[in-house]
Amino acid sequence: MPELRRDPIMGRWVIISTERGKRPLDYGREGEEETNKPCPFCEGNESATPAETLAYRQAGMVKDGPGWWVRVVPNKFPALQIEGSMHRTGEGMYDRMAGIGAHEVIIETPEHKKDFADLSDHQVEEIFWAYRDRIMDLKKDPRFEYILVFKNRGAAAGASLVHPHSQLIALPVVPLRARQLINGSKNYYEYKERCVVCDMNAQETASQTRIITENDDFIAYCPFSSRFPFEIKVVPKHHDAVYEDAQKHEIGNLARIMKICMYKLKRVLDDPPYNFLIHNSPIREVHNQFFHWHLEIIPKLVKVAGFEWGSGFYINPTPPEEAAQFLREAE
Amino acid sequence: MPELRRDPIMGRWVIISTERGKRPLDYGREGEEETNKPCPFCEGNESATPAETLAYRQAGMVKDGPGWWVRVVPNKFPALQIEGSMHRTGEGMYDRMAGIGAHEVIIETPEHKKDFADLSDHQVEEIFWAYRDRIMDLKKDPRFEYILVFKNRGAAAGASLVHPHSQLIALPVVPLRARQLINGSKNYYEYKERCVVCDMNAQETASQTRIITENDDFIAYCPFSSRFPFEIKVVPKHHDAVYEDAQKHEIGNLARIMKICMYKLKRVLDDPPYNFLIHNSPIREVHNQFFHWHLEIIPKLVKVAGFEWGSGFYINPTPPEEAAQFLREAE
Repeated sequence: MPELRRDPIMGRWVIISTERGKRPLDYGREGEEETNKPCPFCEGNESATPAETLAYRQAGMVKDGPGWWVRVVPNKFPALQIEGSMHRTGEGMYDRMAGIGAHEVIIETPEHKKDFADLSDHQVEEIFWAYRDRIMDLKKDPRFEYILVFKNRGAAAGASLVHPHSQLIALPVVPLRARQLINGSKNYYEYKERCVVCDMNAQETASQTRIITENDDFIAYCPFSSRFPFEIKVVPKHHDAVYEDAQKHEIGNLARIMKICMYKLKRVLDDPPYNFLIHNSPIREVHNQFFHWHLEIIPKLVKVAGFEWGSGFYINPTPPEEAAQFLREAE
Repeated sequence: MPELRRDPIMGRWVIISTERGKRPLDYGREGEEETNKPCPFCEGNESATPAETLAYRQAGMVKDGPGWWVRVVPNKFPALQIEGSMHRTGEGMYDRMAGIGAHEVIIETPEHKKDFADLSDHQVEEIFWAYRDRIMDLKKDPRFEYILVFKNRGAAAGASLVHPHSQLIALPVVPLRARQLINGSKNYYEYKERCVVCDMNAQETASQTRIITENDDFIAYCPFSSRFPFEIKVVPKHHDAVYEDAQKHEIGNLARIMKICMYKLKRVLDDPPYNFLIHNSPIREVHNQFFHWHLEIIPKLVKVAGFEWGSGFYINPTPPEEAAQFLREAE
């Protein structure tokens, strides 16, 4: 059973995967799959994954068989375990908890080589609907406090399989960074009585220098204080704290703007490895006034490692104004 | 002139290196130096670096010439600029500041291929004295608030040169992570009226399961809530908030325990890339009761990237108890 352990100084929870229990020389052999192995995410290989939790599939086709266009399955090597009860214990001054949670894989397309930039708007929209459907289902489980949707693309960004997929982790605690984002937003709201993200949207729209693209419902820009080169925030124009509360037209416009951003990144940076994640509200907290959900895309271009992790201090070699201009002008 | 910019939600300062202004296709070509170029850190090539700020050199030898065993020079491509005055401005709701600071390189040995694990105890001790001497000097500059000493070893850990070196950045602000560590330590102190790091030392010593090695002045252990496999904390046994206040015997014992840790990491993990950094007090703040300086070593074994950066949530595949056992038993 994996364990959650709390850092006594920072208050950060960490997952210790005792199941995996990697030995020293298991490291350094990681990378993307060997090409001669059959891909467990391709159509026809459904039996190579655990049984699906969701699929969008042609009428009349059976579960865990072909005919799907988006398919969600439990991660075969989950960081957390779905079965079991919450169990908090101490070890002297330290705190630990059973590693209960869900860890699922959203297989974004049956096609092995097509990433976001290559898919149709409709297909990308279906992926965002799948995130929502899984969140709605997992929210019912009273053990979970937070659901994190993210994507690792490319070995350098932590992906172990080439076939396009994103991931979802449902956690029994709120991650530290999510808590800090909420607290930061709350402090601003208490001071200004306005949402910080709405204010940022307004200023970015007025200045235009960091904007990449926008549509009726979303704005995509390189943040003023970007930690990483070509970092992008994709933010709903309408204030809302909760991703899964988005209107149908918003999911459609989110898919359209994400496809454009991904296409531009691919063009400008020559198909870079990247991560994205959705900054969403915790399940059981209502932050409607001051928290504003959004999505963050981080191309993995620089090797930053422990210095930045350790210090929280980032050095970004490309000003966001220049990054935005390259992306704006692409294609 | 580089710029410091503040994130309006997180309060995090980021360095935007406008000087460097990397264009999209400059990324992806990074790595360690080509072997056919002369190494600027080798003895005899002193003219390839900016003029030294410190060197430990044989008597009678001249500045910026050979005969040294530790040499400190300004970084040729500094993230911050030493000359200029502090200048804070707003841009609407955003805050920026001139990127004033010092960025120096500590060349740890004249020998191109000897890292910590291969150096004599005495040579490692000289490196820690050089950190201290530079900190003492830079502290006099009223523009600086924090001095960060760190090391990137290996291309995967962010090093661009092979020759053993560490770095030092003097900053006009306190980095977010340093602030969080101070605040976390303070909260614990206010609750318990004891130092959290002293309490951790006591518990680790009592349980022994995560301890790697110790000597009269230092203890090295894998933290209970390790974010990364084989992460190590090296902590002074005697409570002290400030690295540069260490006694002479402490600097000696720090060098000895660091050499042992580095040797064990090299043996167990087959010479891994790694980072280390010193968690020290801010220059102008007195946290003597509740803050306890220490050093953190992070072998770079896993590709974690944006998910962890974005969420603050870490998955560690090797329990620290197992990591400590491997390291304890090495050699």
